[in-house]
Amino acid sequence: MTKKIGSQTVALQTPPAIIGNACVVGKKEGEGPLSDSFDYINEDSFFGESSWEKAESAMMKKAFNISCDKAGVSPSQIDYVFAGDLLNQCISSGFCMRDAGVPFFGLYGACSTMGESLALASMVIDGGFADIASASTSSHFCSAERQFRMPLEYGGQRTPTAQWTVTGSGTTILAKDGPGPYITHITQGKIVDNGIKDANNMGAAMAPAAYDTLKAHFEDMSIGPDYYDAIFTGDLGLIGFRIVTEFFASDGIDMTNVYNDCGLIIFDRETQDVHAGGSGCGCAASVLNGYILNGMREGKWNRVLFAPTGALLSTTSTMQGESIPCICTAIAISNTRQGLK
Amino acid sequence: MTKKIGSQTVALQTPPAIIGNACVVGKKEGEGPLSDSFDYINEDSFFGESSWEKAESAMMKKAFNISCDKAGVSPSQIDYVFAGDLLNQCISSGFCMRDAGVPFFGLYGACSTMGESLALASMVIDGGFADIASASTSSHFCSAERQFRMPLEYGGQRTPTAQWTVTGSGTTILAKDGPGPYITHITQGKIVDNGIKDANNMGAAMAPAAYDTLKAHFEDMSIGPDYYDAIFTGDLGLIGFRIVTEFFASDGIDMTNVYNDCGLIIFDRETQDVHAGGSGCGCAASVLNGYILNGMREGKWNRVLFAPTGALLSTTSTMQGESIPCICTAIAISNTRQGLK
Repeated sequence: MTKKIGSQTVALQTPPAIIGNACVVGKKEGEGPLSDSFDYINEDSFFGESSWEKAESAMMKKAFNISCDKAGVSPSQIDYVFAGDLLNQCISSGFCMRDAGVPFFGLYGACSTMGESLALASMVIDGGFADIASASTSSHFCSAERQFRMPLEYGGQRTPTAQWTVTGSGTTILAKDGPGPYITHITQGKIVDNGIKDANNMGAAMAPAAYDTLKAHFEDMSIGPDYYDAIFTGDLGLIGFRIVTEFFASDGIDMTNVYNDCGLIIFDRETQDVHAGGSGCGCAASVLNGYILNGMREGKWNRVLFAPTGALLSTTSTMQGESIPCICTAIAISNTRQGLK
Repeated sequence: MTKKIGSQTVALQTPPAIIGNACVVGKKEGEGPLSDSFDYINEDSFFGESSWEKAESAMMKKAFNISCDKAGVSPSQIDYVFAGDLLNQCISSGFCMRDAGVPFFGLYGACSTMGESLALASMVIDGGFADIASASTSSHFCSAERQFRMPLEYGGQRTPTAQWTVTGSGTTILAKDGPGPYITHITQGKIVDNGIKDANNMGAAMAPAAYDTLKAHFEDMSIGPDYYDAIFTGDLGLIGFRIVTEFFASDGIDMTNVYNDCGLIIFDRETQDVHAGGSGCGCAASVLNGYILNGMREGKWNRVLFAPTGALLSTTSTMQGESIPCICTAIAISNTRQGLK
């Protein structure tokens, strides 16, 4: 049977259960408003390692291990690991998972990777290829800064539209059976590039991709945003959040009752000097695997749409004058397996 | 129903059909022994573009378009594109696919990406999530050299164990139904790192991953290598090829009747100055989507095991003294849908 709904959405026939989730962050994130929702807060940026890249890998490992513990599974029970990150050649994920002994699918969806990994893990479980699969991603402020912008020591000035890369990692463990919440639908995005070239304004670059995927999701499902108790984009920050809200408003769709962005809630923008908000793969990953999923379990929300976006640029493409192709994956999460349309 | 066989292999319940395949290469590859099998050979390295990165993207686009033409499908009929490459943040794939208008899954499996993309495309089709999906990857000698080693202008000396990155791209279009060949089984690899640190000896680094995945495949399927008419690894080159052959020989398993490596056959090592052989995502991709699949259609082989390997290192991990984590995906391809074990 086909599981396709409309042009771009699929329904999971037996929605996979989220049997474990964990997030690990750095000091600055631990000082923010979501402090209580993190499983582990490191007191510095190094996580006991000698470089920031190794620290990022160690942080992902910690989130993966805590998530396995909370799910009550050992890594050897996991059929597939899906993981990716922002670093060149995704070394945070590759080095993190090299000792796990689990078949590995490496992904690159930039800051949408938490959504991409959940999408593929859900499909391989519902397709009958796995009983348990995990989805992981990470970002680290210091490794991202020196790769994409300048080494921290340079002390570069940040523009008002810039966002602060979250030092954080999250893992979600999915299984064929379990108490939930459940992943019920997936809308995988197309690449959208509206010509933005400013690598310090990712919110504006990514907002059209979020709008495109969310619009497709609403149309495919024949629903409006209020079908969900909450909708979270990943790291659009204040500028991207406003653009998405305005795009929908001009379509006559009011997002304001349910819509928020992980990049807006992970830091206190008044006191934490993060300009337009948080960003990075680890932003959506650590908010989903703490605040959002915990909130669902506590009954704060029953239906959530999680829609992280990614900017598929590199320093080379920017230096060659290219604009920024972006993507967004939407993952519908529900406290019950009912309510499939 | 579960489709798992043994510890690490899955069987496709309705093996997806390869309805289109194409490969596009550069001048040097066009002068090699597989010249007749390529769909398009460019006369220089630029593919009409102003940089090597843009050239690589244009080359992937050409392979994708020819593949769609040969399959008789328009991009809008494709449910999902799976693509990845070696460049930082996979810009060859992201920029190639930004105009395709197809839901996109970005992958990073280094030179195993042709296998990884086929694995996931096959599973989403067999799982009922897609009718048609495509798998693409690419590499370009000049973009890879300047990213991983030195700009060509530096004229760096190459070691005898070094391999020559193939300028090439391949796309395979898979569908629920069609004349075949068919993808029948997938063995997704675990990450294997045996401690090799020499980034100029990828064959030695990747061979243990190939051995690990092939061994798991043979054990899961209760078969030996002679079950297949041919087995191809992706770009182990002469050194890696010999190591895999010797590892199996020490287990009492003779690979010599059926085993070859795409990196050994794409160039003439005697005359083309490629040292240990060809490498890069585009090596396995252009040999699979030309020589191998054409050969299957011509009846040269009925059952093929395609097992590309990837080295998940970056220049940063090498400079930080790390060894090289590697991975291998094995894809069983058959001219008939029968013969499932």
